[in-house]
Amino acid sequence: MSDIDTLINYLAKLPGLGPRSAQRAALYLMKRRESVLVPLAKALRDAADTVRTCSVCANLDTVDPCGICRDFRRDARLICVVEDVADLWALERTAAFKGHYHVLGGTLSALDGIGPEDLNIPRLVARARESDTTEVILATNATVDGQTTAHYIIDQLAGTGVVVSSLAQGVPMGGELNYLDDGTLSAALKARRPSE
Amino acid sequence: MSDIDTLINYLAKLPGLGPRSAQRAALYLMKRRESVLVPLAKALRDAADTVRTCSVCANLDTVDPCGICRDFRRDARLICVVEDVADLWALERTAAFKGHYHVLGGTLSALDGIGPEDLNIPRLVARARESDTTEVILATNATVDGQTTAHYIIDQLAGTGVVVSSLAQGVPMGGELNYLDDGTLSAALKARRPSE
Repeated sequence: MSDIDTLINYLAKLPGLGPRSAQRAALYLMKRRESVLVPLAKALRDAADTVRTCSVCANLDTVDPCGICRDFRRDARLICVVEDVADLWALERTAAFKGHYHVLGGTLSALDGIGPEDLNIPRLVARARESDTTEVILATNATVDGQTTAHYIIDQLAGTGVVVSSLAQGVPMGGELNYLDDGTLSAALKARRPSE
Repeated sequence: MSDIDTLINYLAKLPGLGPRSAQRAALYLMKRRESVLVPLAKALRDAADTVRTCSVCANLDTVDPCGICRDFRRDARLICVVEDVADLWALERTAAFKGHYHVLGGTLSALDGIGPEDLNIPRLVARARESDTTEVILATNATVDGQTTAHYIIDQLAGTGVVVSSLAQGVPMGGELNYLDDGTLSAALKARRPSE
């Protein structure tokens, strides 16, 4: 297999790129050798060499503990539990949370055979017990697996004395009631608040 | 900027990937360090080191002349003219053409200021004159710029004695007349053939 085919095959593995768009990306790269191809190769090499998993929260960063865990301006007493680093990035984009994180690395899933020991849960319980944590905010996805995992964590944290909270559920910004599913509508109705 | 941000920025330059899908691709890669990240970095490095432009036809390959130009089973008397390497790949996928190619590297475009000297046209005229070329098949896109370029090439090849032909225009396979544009329908009607 030629170097071009090898490149196309690896590009096609990326999420969002199929075989045809991988060909297009490979051509794009080969036509921009100095401006994109070589720098991208170097960026991948650098990431492979420097990116590691944070030993505290399992975030990905070039330092360990990660930049968030070592940022003294953030409130270490709050731990926000997310399924994946992508969720952590999504929350960071909002700039609405100034505590620490804990990345589970997935959800409990009977179907996929993922149990508590496959996730980063024991480390979370240890963090809740050992440090001066006051609140654990569960920000797993609002899916069946995400909520099952949240309930399991609530059980595990019972007796540690920390407050356990979850993200609010309700009508999303710009959401039209007519197009919302019944579950969201019921939850929003149940969690209704006095108007300000 | 951290190595992760640098990687995301370069991935976002790829056609088909936006800022969000580049984040997703970067996470995907960092979680698969040995199986995808490192091999992709190597594939890019290898492509940067080995891929070159064929000095005969301007195809991209790891050898010069390219694999097609040096394949003695192919008919060197036929030259198929395409705008881009992607078009050459598309024709090769059909396995319907066993001649040689000539990649223009674009089309004439008054708007973008691309003239004949910016394209690979003089080299095509030289190939038509020098070698034992019998036919030049114009396979530029059926766009205004593509057809303008084809007409310019027809003028340039006048007097060389080679036959100049173009791809047939008509109803595409599976095409429904009701949804075809008027230009295609008119062309298909004008180029009608006796039924077999």
